[in-house]
Amino acid sequence: MAEYTAPLRDMQFVINELIGMPRMQQLAGFDEVSADLSDAVLEEAAKLATEVLSPLNRVGDTVGCRLEGDVVHTPPGWREAYQAFCEGGWNGLAMNPEFGGQGLPKVVATAVGEMWDSANMAFGLCPLLTGGAIEAIEQHGDDNLRATYLAKLIAGTWTGTMNLTEPQAGSDLSTVRSRAVPEGDHYLISGQKIFITYGEHDMTDNIVHLVLARLPDAPEGTRGISLFAVPKFLVNADGTLGHRNDLRCVSIEHKLGIHGSPTAVMSYGDNGGAVGYLVGEANKGLMHMFTMMNAARHAVGREGVAIAERAYQKALQHARERVQGQVPGAGPRATIIEHPDVKRMLMTMKCQIEAMRALSYLCALEYDTAELDADAERRARAERRGDLLTPIVKAWCTETGAELASIGVQVHGGMGFIEETGAAQFFRDARITPIYEGTTGIQAGDLVGRKTLRDSGHAMRELIADMRATVANMQNLDGTAAQVRDALAVAVDYLEVVVGWLCGAASDPRLPASAAVSYLKLAGLVCGGWMMAQAAARSAAQLAGGDDFYRAKLAAAGFYAAQILPQAGALADIIVKGSAAVAELDTALL
Amino acid sequence: MAEYTAPLRDMQFVINELIGMPRMQQLAGFDEVSADLSDAVLEEAAKLATEVLSPLNRVGDTVGCRLEGDVVHTPPGWREAYQAFCEGGWNGLAMNPEFGGQGLPKVVATAVGEMWDSANMAFGLCPLLTGGAIEAIEQHGDDNLRATYLAKLIAGTWTGTMNLTEPQAGSDLSTVRSRAVPEGDHYLISGQKIFITYGEHDMTDNIVHLVLARLPDAPEGTRGISLFAVPKFLVNADGTLGHRNDLRCVSIEHKLGIHGSPTAVMSYGDNGGAVGYLVGEANKGLMHMFTMMNAARHAVGREGVAIAERAYQKALQHARERVQGQVPGAGPRATIIEHPDVKRMLMTMKCQIEAMRALSYLCALEYDTAELDADAERRARAERRGDLLTPIVKAWCTETGAELASIGVQVHGGMGFIEETGAAQFFRDARITPIYEGTTGIQAGDLVGRKTLRDSGHAMRELIADMRATVANMQNLDGTAAQVRDALAVAVDYLEVVVGWLCGAASDPRLPASAAVSYLKLAGLVCGGWMMAQAAARSAAQLAGGDDFYRAKLAAAGFYAAQILPQAGALADIIVKGSAAVAELDTALL
Repeated sequence: MAEYTAPLRDMQFVINELIGMPRMQQLAGFDEVSADLSDAVLEEAAKLATEVLSPLNRVGDTVGCRLEGDVVHTPPGWREAYQAFCEGGWNGLAMNPEFGGQGLPKVVATAVGEMWDSANMAFGLCPLLTGGAIEAIEQHGDDNLRATYLAKLIAGTWTGTMNLTEPQAGSDLSTVRSRAVPEGDHYLISGQKIFITYGEHDMTDNIVHLVLARLPDAPEGTRGISLFAVPKFLVNADGTLGHRNDLRCVSIEHKLGIHGSPTAVMSYGDNGGAVGYLVGEANKGLMHMFTMMNAARHAVGREGVAIAERAYQKALQHARERVQGQVPGAGPRATIIEHPDVKRMLMTMKCQIEAMRALSYLCALEYDTAELDADAERRARAERRGDLLTPIVKAWCTETGAELASIGVQVHGGMGFIEETGAAQFFRDARITPIYEGTTGIQAGDLVGRKTLRDSGHAMRELIADMRATVANMQNLDGTAAQVRDALAVAVDYLEVVVGWLCGAASDPRLPASAAVSYLKLAGLVCGGWMMAQAAARSAAQLAGGDDFYRAKLAAAGFYAAQILPQAGALADIIVKGSAAVAELDTALL
Repeated sequence: MAEYTAPLRDMQFVINELIGMPRMQQLAGFDEVSADLSDAVLEEAAKLATEVLSPLNRVGDTVGCRLEGDVVHTPPGWREAYQAFCEGGWNGLAMNPEFGGQGLPKVVATAVGEMWDSANMAFGLCPLLTGGAIEAIEQHGDDNLRATYLAKLIAGTWTGTMNLTEPQAGSDLSTVRSRAVPEGDHYLISGQKIFITYGEHDMTDNIVHLVLARLPDAPEGTRGISLFAVPKFLVNADGTLGHRNDLRCVSIEHKLGIHGSPTAVMSYGDNGGAVGYLVGEANKGLMHMFTMMNAARHAVGREGVAIAERAYQKALQHARERVQGQVPGAGPRATIIEHPDVKRMLMTMKCQIEAMRALSYLCALEYDTAELDADAERRARAERRGDLLTPIVKAWCTETGAELASIGVQVHGGMGFIEETGAAQFFRDARITPIYEGTTGIQAGDLVGRKTLRDSGHAMRELIADMRATVANMQNLDGTAAQVRDALAVAVDYLEVVVGWLCGAASDPRLPASAAVSYLKLAGLVCGGWMMAQAAARSAAQLAGGDDFYRAKLAAAGFYAAQILPQAGALADIIVKGSAAVAELDTALL
């Protein structure tokens, strides 16, 4: 089976040429970050991804995880791979150097994370969740918690989890029932949590669970939820492991995909209560959790890019090898890549992967800027932009990623449906991404409510202005780049009309909610077009060098403009004229 | 887990009210067909589908088939279900009464087949393939073949298969290598065939394989392929079973879905040659096979409708039961069906299922008309229409069906990704439908080449004229029906522009081929709108009766017009302005 090749030059193009190394270097602490450094990190990561993680992807799918007594056995070879992963220092790539992290830009970590996810998405989920726990403890934990847990989590010696969901509390966490009773310097936690990614596994000696629960006197609803750190093994004052805590994995789920990633049902406090430590302020757990959820949402969007890239590589290789049918001008026996519709499918994958990749890296740069820029106004603006882009990256990249993984199956014809081919695994794995860390509907609600209506469209109009600036900067171009520019200009108009309509429609709250997912798709589509326009402008300027790389970039941008971006008009129509059909629908008629 | 409920009234609406019982009754032999008779057949079929087949759907998925020595064991309970199926006379529902069939309209058989496929798609594949074998032998076999095999196949006592694909010959059958050497009154067949649905199983005593192979003196390419009937057991002159033929199942595939349907690798002639009988003329096998492939393609389109219906029922039930989140006006704890985006997802499923169902039944009526109408011109017109609609029904209904099954998963949130929930099975099962019996690309090539360019768009313009007549007939309507009418009028304009462009673009053969799949999707989308407009007109006229059924039909049509049909403009853009980006793409840049 085809293995994964890291698309290093594509990644470097985005980091070094498109969203811009200069923007990164001006941030505090990144003055020594250079294209050379970034390239070297990417190349080193590519080795681990292609040589260690990718070869374990299939065994993860076919063997999966197994709960035996108290132990969840990860697939053969995964323990060793995780050890190599930690020994390489990869877990702490963009983490705080104070606790052993390497303090590299999130943009670089995003590219590296894309490699883990392309190589082996089920494996990549483990550090993804650990990253969430690190962020929660770093931002909200007290000194003691930070001292006890951060270095171990950042090194990857211990892993972390996020325990939000309960059977009755999924997208709506206001109904969380797990309890936390104060006892001395800690709390006793009890309750059941479901869908806990890497809730139990055999790759590390300890696991630190971040758990949402309610204090005895907590108010009802979302304002009565607190966040706790609940380690599998208690930690002694000297940092060694102490008693087993009162928590256990009850079962692991039998899932459509990501079989290598154990999804646990966790039970806390069966024997009196699991020892937990309050993270941040009491009753502000949901707010604290949202900090880490933003990063996790961005990371899941990246999974969408990654799984589509892997599916694309597989489909491309098949299309270059499989001989079938005749194509005028391609000799008597053509490889299927010569068939116009196969070309169409492959470029439909490639151009959207490039658009999504650029947007997800840009979003990471906004996070870095929001944190590290010397200028308060630039920080605020970057935070607005990152907050605006996060639900788009999460939902658009995952919905599109799942679609592209399906096209990957289609390129294989009948072989695509045979599990041994491997294309089907990407199709199955991809399907979780528009669901977990907040479904597409939840992201769209966030985009339309918190990110658009709440500021009367200000952040979105700022983004639209930047897109128009890109169009203006491209005025002197011709050929394909000019076509991309013009297509973007049309699409931006549609987006602006929709934003105006949304802000005007706010008096009937059912309309924005009814339009939300289409609005999110429109925003993703147009953001993608914006990225591709910039790629086209850059590539047009580099064409004279005769490098096929830039020819390919320009072709991808032209294809995006011609075959993908025209959906903007339809989405605008569906939103402006069609949302009433959703809002007014009597559910009795379903 | 939710089981299947046959949507009898929806089916009856299409058969009796929409495409019209009168059109059926005027056909030769159908004068005694009535709404009462059709309804009674549907109700009886619903019992078998819901009580026998649907409960076996899950065991088919989880246990699947198993090859042991020479025997493929079907899942527990399937043998008995197949026996019940045959005893009910269901296998021969629309078959020739001369050989024991019941001679009912294909429209009724299509509705009944939809039930089998909704209840248990993997099971339904067995009679689907037998139907293909029956058609091939009935239309092209000599008297001896017909006398020996038809009655047994129509009764279901024996099943049939279609053996086309070889490892090197998939979509392009010109490279078939299997050999047939004449010997007395028969031929000796040898070669390997793959992807043979129900190529081996334990449900009947005999299996009749329809096999494509080459005679020794056959010309190269498609004009040198002949069709043979190759029984698993030879049949004695008295109709009893004789020797085991020289053919065997080498292995069965491990697939993404339809686990209950054994997909066999078949080997013919390992010990000298399997006895086979020529069906039809030598070297015309591919043409003969196409007759049966048309029916099979229509049936696979129906699978798309069926699996989407099943996925919809499951999602709807979940959405009515699952309490989560708050909705203004829906009380403190809402079931998720009250959330606008969940409503949107569910109606997106429902309205497209209704559009697809109507189109697939209409296509069946065209087949009946082409065969049985007294008037030669009406027969010819119906044949043109059926031929035009077949690739649309096949590819549009399956692509859409797969998309809707994915939405069905999404409605379930995290539970949708857990296999035990059941939604994932429909998602996996549905994925094969846009692939087998000719991929979407193959169907689109057929639509644009043979069905549009070859007659300079005549048949498609005939269809467009009928759509315009529907619009004209709706002139006096208002409200939702008028909105549907107007949306259809706009979409038909787009379709007509595209047909004109395609016929004009024919001088560059790369352009129509590059536009093919988008053209097929546009045609499906607009045909669906045409069906929904007719449903709206009919329902508007029945509203006064106060029946919620017609209110729901009207709401579905309005939703289709508002939320689905606007894609027509984007597709037209993508085709007319965007096809060059596909055609001119240099494959080296992928």
